[in-house]
Amino acid sequence: MAQATETRRELERYLHEHIPLSRAMAVTVVAATPQEVCLAAPLGPNINHRDTVFGGSAAALAMLAAWSLLHVRLRAEGRAARLVIQRNTMEYERPIPGDFTARATLAEPDRWAQFSATLARRGKARIAVTAVLEHAGQAAGRLHGEFVALRGADG
Amino acid sequence: MAQATETRRELERYLHEHIPLSRAMAVTVVAATPQEVCLAAPLGPNINHRDTVFGGSAAALAMLAAWSLLHVRLRAEGRAARLVIQRNTMEYERPIPGDFTARATLAEPDRWAQFSATLARRGKARIAVTAVLEHAGQAAGRLHGEFVALRGADG
Repeated sequence: MAQATETRRELERYLHEHIPLSRAMAVTVVAATPQEVCLAAPLGPNINHRDTVFGGSAAALAMLAAWSLLHVRLRAEGRAARLVIQRNTMEYERPIPGDFTARATLAEPDRWAQFSATLARRGKARIAVTAVLEHAGQAAGRLHGEFVALRGADG
Repeated sequence: MAQATETRRELERYLHEHIPLSRAMAVTVVAATPQEVCLAAPLGPNINHRDTVFGGSAAALAMLAAWSLLHVRLRAEGRAARLVIQRNTMEYERPIPGDFTARATLAEPDRWAQFSATLARRGKARIAVTAVLEHAGQAAGRLHGEFVALRGADG
């Protein structure tokens, strides 16, 4: 628990310090474990002209959650890797009229062992992450993100 | 020309006022015609931990450009419509180590007439926009965004 709280605070500090847009969006870290990262953001700084969440903010929160999951998971395994997003798809299922979260998990958890072994052997491997946007307990959108991990320090 | 400048300034004011993230990203409007909208943003507020543009900022600028193109084009035709993003795909082709732009055009310009007629007849129509991210004259990424337009005022 103490460890989990430390990881959460550390991730929040890291995001705010290195990705200023996360600070402008007022992103907070709700959960950060190797299984799941959940980030939250308030409507205020992320609002659009319809008084719902701007799609760009929704996509950015989902991407931050997806990247953070891989970052936390690789750190927990003691692996240094640089993560590069290659492609993502966002589905916007419904407007978000208030505060929202993005919950990231591996798209195919069973592929992690192979990903990790390939990264160790070849210095490069691919992995996909899913991030679900939620508002008031209801799914509102979904990101599928494809990343490449490259052996080496990441910032 | 005077008309084009007015449209550009008006769009910039609209974005900054109604979508605060566009102000946090320091977005400016380079061009805004019914054929093409080009938005720019500096690296500073959009930087990541690798000193390149954060993917979420890249996606957000591309989405703003795509939405703005439809907004400007519908206004030029005297049509009031609400624009809802349904889905987008972003391809990240290379890291962006400095200021960048997003240039939006219709994915299939020939479909506009049909889109416009369907919107008038049924009050609802779909259209796709492409936005190309550029840095230093070189393409760095690409968004394909699918929108639904609904008859009615948009903010």
